[in-house]
Amino acid sequence: GSAFAQTSTVTLFGVADVAVRQVKNGNAGTVKGVTSGGNTTSRLGVRGVEDLGGGMSAGFHLESGIELDAGTANASKFWNRRSTVSLIGSFGEVRLGRDSTPTYNNAVNDEFGIVGVGSRGIFVYGSGSNLGSGANTLQRTDNGVSYFLPKNLGGAFGQLHVAAGEGNTVGNKYYGGRVGYEDKQFLVGGAYGTTDVGGTQGKFKNYNLLFNYKSPWGTLHTLFDVKKWGARKSTEISVGATIPVTVGQIRVGYTNADRSGGAVGSGYANGDDSTRLALGYVYDFSKRTAVYGTVARIGNKGAARSSVLYTTPAGMLGGQNSTGAEVGLRHNF
Amino acid sequence: GSAFAQTSTVTLFGVADVAVRQVKNGNAGTVKGVTSGGNTTSRLGVRGVEDLGGGMSAGFHLESGIELDAGTANASKFWNRRSTVSLIGSFGEVRLGRDSTPTYNNAVNDEFGIVGVGSRGIFVYGSGSNLGSGANTLQRTDNGVSYFLPKNLGGAFGQLHVAAGEGNTVGNKYYGGRVGYEDKQFLVGGAYGTTDVGGTQGKFKNYNLLFNYKSPWGTLHTLFDVKKWGARKSTEISVGATIPVTVGQIRVGYTNADRSGGAVGSGYANGDDSTRLALGYVYDFSKRTAVYGTVARIGNKGAARSSVLYTTPAGMLGGQNSTGAEVGLRHNF
Amino acid sequence: GSAFAQTSTVTLFGVADVAVRQVKNGNAGTVKGVTSGGNTTSRLGVRGVEDLGGGMSAGFHLESGIELDAGTANASKFWNRRSTVSLIGSFGEVRLGRDSTPTYNNAVNDEFGIVGVGSRGIFVYGSGSNLGSGANTLQRTDNGVSYFLPKNLGGAFGQLHVAAGEGNTVGNKYYGGRVGYEDKQFLVGGAYGTTDVGGTQGKFKNYNLLFNYKSPWGTLHTLFDVKKWGARKSTEISVGATIPVTVGQIRVGYTNADRSGGAVGSGYANGDDSTRLALGYVYDFSKRTAVYGTVARIGNKGAARSSVLYTTPAGMLGGQNSTGAEVGLRHNF
Repeated sequence: GSAFAQTSTVTLFGVADVAVRQVKNGNAGTVKGVTSGGNTTSRLGVRGVEDLGGGMSAGFHLESGIELDAGTANASKFWNRRSTVSLIGSFGEVRLGRDSTPTYNNAVNDEFGIVGVGSRGIFVYGSGSNLGSGANTLQRTDNGVSYFLPKNLGGAFGQLHVAAGEGNTVGNKYYGGRVGYEDKQFLVGGAYGTTDVGGTQGKFKNYNLLFNYKSPWGTLHTLFDVKKWGARKSTEISVGATIPVTVGQIRVGYTNADRSGGAVGSGYANGDDSTRLALGYVYDFSKRTAVYGTVARIGNKGAARSSVLYTTPAGMLGGQNSTGAEVGLRHNF
Repeated sequence: GSAFAQTSTVTLFGVADVAVRQVKNGNAGTVKGVTSGGNTTSRLGVRGVEDLGGGMSAGFHLESGIELDAGTANASKFWNRRSTVSLIGSFGEVRLGRDSTPTYNNAVNDEFGIVGVGSRGIFVYGSGSNLGSGANTLQRTDNGVSYFLPKNLGGAFGQLHVAAGEGNTVGNKYYGGRVGYEDKQFLVGGAYGTTDVGGTQGKFKNYNLLFNYKSPWGTLHTLFDVKKWGARKSTEISVGATIPVTVGQIRVGYTNADRSGGAVGSGYANGDDSTRLALGYVYDFSKRTAVYGTVARIGNKGAARSSVLYTTPAGMLGGQNSTGAEVGLRHNF
Repeated sequence: GSAFAQTSTVTLFGVADVAVRQVKNGNAGTVKGVTSGGNTTSRLGVRGVEDLGGGMSAGFHLESGIELDAGTANASKFWNRRSTVSLIGSFGEVRLGRDSTPTYNNAVNDEFGIVGVGSRGIFVYGSGSNLGSGANTLQRTDNGVSYFLPKNLGGAFGQLHVAAGEGNTVGNKYYGGRVGYEDKQFLVGGAYGTTDVGGTQGKFKNYNLLFNYKSPWGTLHTLFDVKKWGARKSTEISVGATIPVTVGQIRVGYTNADRSGGAVGSGYANGDDSTRLALGYVYDFSKRTAVYGTVARIGNKGAARSSVLYTTPAGMLGGQNSTGAEVGLRHNF
């Protein structure tokens, strides 16, 4: 056990979230199991900020994803969620290290918290979302240099992000940015990013527009997200809502993913489209602890193979549907 | 360094234990070295509890084993000792994630703290303890759902534990339970568990009975532990004691492991038996810090190959004996 | 987030350091990138001390290096920087586990903090510093038993360190020691260590002499470091200085590495020599946070291949030069 004696401020934080889940992925069949992070990704983090005086501060942030059902951390990249050091002042923030990309940051404010069987995250960063390009930047990049606008711009925010290719790294070299505005009622944002992926097809490109509307009856979540690589293109439109009820919250979400340009059978041909429909309920014991339940279905057409598992299992064939249901317990610390 | 500012309670805890050790394992020869965890397994953990009101609480527990002699954590399963989230109330506790099994929980209260060259843990979870079945549940399971009886039952306790097989996992799917009673004088418990291991030999089964007697002159530790898989069977009877002396404590332990049913030469045939004898001393500098010394010998008959190293070295032949001596320093934090 | 409630003292500490860097290594070409630890190695650690009374204490120290640019910890040895438990008294300190060697401890007090493109650490533990012997003890050993002299000897200090070979481990079995003296003006030390590396060439040997002079105008850092294995020998002489200026500090460093005895073309032949020249500047925002910039050049003769990258890239040929420049942000916590 431990008491802490120094004057600096280091915070140990995280999420422990485990769900019981049943999924069916076409010919890959039905799997019942226990899984990590149906509501929020399980993690452990350490972060801190030092006041440097004169309106300046320095900070660090380390965050490690955990598969809480099996006790595993990422074997090759322990601090896989974030490892950064920052210098912050009236000029904004300069942040160095591994971090999420502007295009991801602009897409992750959905009704399901971007994880679980019901989230639009399946299309934002799940199987096939890089259009087969090898881009490894749908969530985060290594070797990032980010600049964030200062926080006192009356609700406006912005980020520029460059990730070094470091000579020969394919799929990590990224340029991107995001601008937006948030107040008590609206959150709107636009982001654009390109990733060097080698080959002759050109860069992988991603841009998206986020529009959320917050009101007493609930929050509307929308996202328009486009990915392009050579002739391949995927356009997703998502609409969802978080609706407070007498006890707890109801969550509903819908996505239509329209793919085109790829060869027939590739999963990226015209008509290789997918539709997501999800319904969930969250009961909050406190601000930190909740139980939740979600049911979701992804319908695939043509050779499309999107799955509620994010990583499509090998046995699932193109055009087969994916369904999932989960009940879990989430605790923030 | 760090001070902590939030109102929730997170505890950072662990054990640092290193010993200097000499072991001899038959033809595998003598090895002198430095090893981790002769008294208690070295580890680092993070845990916390949140009071939800109304007699309910939520908690999490992350615990990572450390080989302190070499600075290694488990490479594939960082939080290998435990990774759970819990909801606790008057109904008891529901716990989800990776955790120890009821059969293990019922066997781990021995005079040597279940680790080191002298512990009966060698038979509880060491080499050969799954009878070659592939069962991976002698200590813990992934994907566990556990229910614990509430703590206010006048000394009675109980646990049910189910671990999901998740489609195709062999050796992890487990059903088990434990009931018992503890007061100031007695600790008694019984546990039973079965593990799916595929094949045609049926499930791997383990059951055990624990009886400890606590008195001013010391504690008596006994265990009757049975493992079965197809025709193979192992029955271990262990007796030990922890005896306070003027300064520190003396520990003695004995096990007889009686194996049968396996083919000749398998190590599980009738007569492939083992006997453990161990003597130790612990000097406590404080509740948290101690130095300790242990000498132990395992005698093997027939093709039995049990070793004080838990994992029998390749060069040790059936029927050869294993001896070990270690002196170490253990510090809880 | 977390508050801590127990009476013992556990400290969570570390360094977050990321730099933007450009290096050129002969035919291996120029690489621009983002890297971790240009001023101080990025890390996360946990340590604690318990007062046992009577002038005695117990302590532990766990420390994990982090490649902050990519979020990676050491995949096979998570607590790669240190994992020890200690008993401390009027007799001194006994320390068990993975730790730095006396020869390393005696060499690491340089003007560049032993890391980054400008440090003499390139010769202390970089590519080729074990003379091809397989010795793995230039920084740390596993399985170490160390004894340190007590701290109240009027500035004198000393360490003995033995690392167990544990039967068949080549390159880790080490015997070494260090003695020295430090006051407000001087730091002087001498260390010697030998490592079993198998084969017929005998042990790998390393000895060094450190002399630092501290004054108001700055600190002079010198090191005389010799490595031997069979006929191969490397002798490095380093001189450097840390010079406070009106704002911040200037750092300069020089090393001449004189190799001999190896076969022609081995990189260890007579004339396979290297020269290091480095210039840096550090601006301290606080005691914990700084920005820094360094330029450095290593000139190689004959078949020498030393690089500012410590690990020489494959494409760099013998006799080619290595240059580097980096600008970074370092934050201690």
